[in-house]
Amino acid sequence: MAPTKAPDSSRRSDRSRRAIHDAALALVTEVGYRRTTIEGIAARAGVGKQTIYRWWPSKAAVLMDAFLDLAGRSAEGVGTESEAEGAGESGEGAQTPGIPDSGDLVADLKLVLRATVDELNDPALEAPTRALTAEGIVDAKLGAEFVRKLLDPQLALYVTRLGAAQEAGDVRADIDPRIALELLIGPLMHRWLLRTLPLTHAYADAIVDYAVGGLAPRP
Amino acid sequence: MAPTKAPDSSRRSDRSRRAIHDAALALVTEVGYRRTTIEGIAARAGVGKQTIYRWWPSKAAVLMDAFLDLAGRSAEGVGTESEAEGAGESGEGAQTPGIPDSGDLVADLKLVLRATVDELNDPALEAPTRALTAEGIVDAKLGAEFVRKLLDPQLALYVTRLGAAQEAGDVRADIDPRIALELLIGPLMHRWLLRTLPLTHAYADAIVDYAVGGLAPRP
Repeated sequence: MAPTKAPDSSRRSDRSRRAIHDAALALVTEVGYRRTTIEGIAARAGVGKQTIYRWWPSKAAVLMDAFLDLAGRSAEGVGTESEAEGAGESGEGAQTPGIPDSGDLVADLKLVLRATVDELNDPALEAPTRALTAEGIVDAKLGAEFVRKLLDPQLALYVTRLGAAQEAGDVRADIDPRIALELLIGPLMHRWLLRTLPLTHAYADAIVDYAVGGLAPRP
Repeated sequence: MAPTKAPDSSRRSDRSRRAIHDAALALVTEVGYRRTTIEGIAARAGVGKQTIYRWWPSKAAVLMDAFLDLAGRSAEGVGTESEAEGAGESGEGAQTPGIPDSGDLVADLKLVLRATVDELNDPALEAPTRALTAEGIVDAKLGAEFVRKLLDPQLALYVTRLGAAQEAGDVRADIDPRIALELLIGPLMHRWLLRTLPLTHAYADAIVDYAVGGLAPRP
């Protein structure tokens, strides 16, 4: 996207970025967030420390970008070279394709919650996601960045879909969509983070049915 | 409770245990779970390492007991000496006083969820709870112990209360109480762990209202 750069230099940049992302994710998985260092990432990626400092202000920033890149690639399925370059250019928002609106709220929510279950159960994503989440739980500053960059854009999609459902008369008008979405996301994350019970499609379906229909009998 | 011990020795034991618990909680708060060691706990508590190894098989076991003791004291409010001794004797189950059954499911659930909000917002509990939870997220074995000893006994209380509500006709018969409880607990833990938005009594009330009544309009 930078017109002043020759195509070769731009491709080399993309390759370095991807190598740095992969090194950062591998390290955080192996030794945890705290013991991952810029030096370690540079050594593993085969680049100089200064290359990393030129592009990112901190270890947290590298990892956040690496994570957005990974999540974007995972959402796209098997990434081709050209897709990978695009994802490297603007990681943010890569994993927010929107919640479908087929007119059937329950079916749409089950679709997206099942996809979330698959993502959380994806072995390539699991270890780095756990490492980042765990660190965000004890480090409020990192946690806030994690929420702002990764989580909030996803939650906004639920607000939009639930708002549309309110207009369609499928959700009560007095419901706050920002709170309602937590009835859907909260149980999935709770089960995944604490590993209380297996995280399955059947569970995702039950959560949607219970949340939309309510626990109390309907007359 | 050990009839062969003289009262003085038993009291000294209780004091040592409490000192070890406090040292373990202080250390995990200050340096995190991984850098907390049995040696460090012993030094801070002013006891020999062997005293700790006599009572606990591992660092995780000390911390789990320390945490149960703390949660028990917190649930009791300001602890007196005699209460503290009782809690030291059997930490497990100290924080599971049961969910009331007044016949009004919504009111009972709001009561217990508001109490959970207060507990999660308690500054004395926050840092050690975060440290243990974060480590359980990346360490599957510790996480499983955390769930078995701390979480499952609490979740069982919800299963009991929701089962009673089914018998009273306040919850649909086709609902699985073990899943339904996650609609109540999941959102609270999600908001607390990820610090997305403030965790308030109003939020707890909304979660109960939404979960019991459902998001869809009632005819």
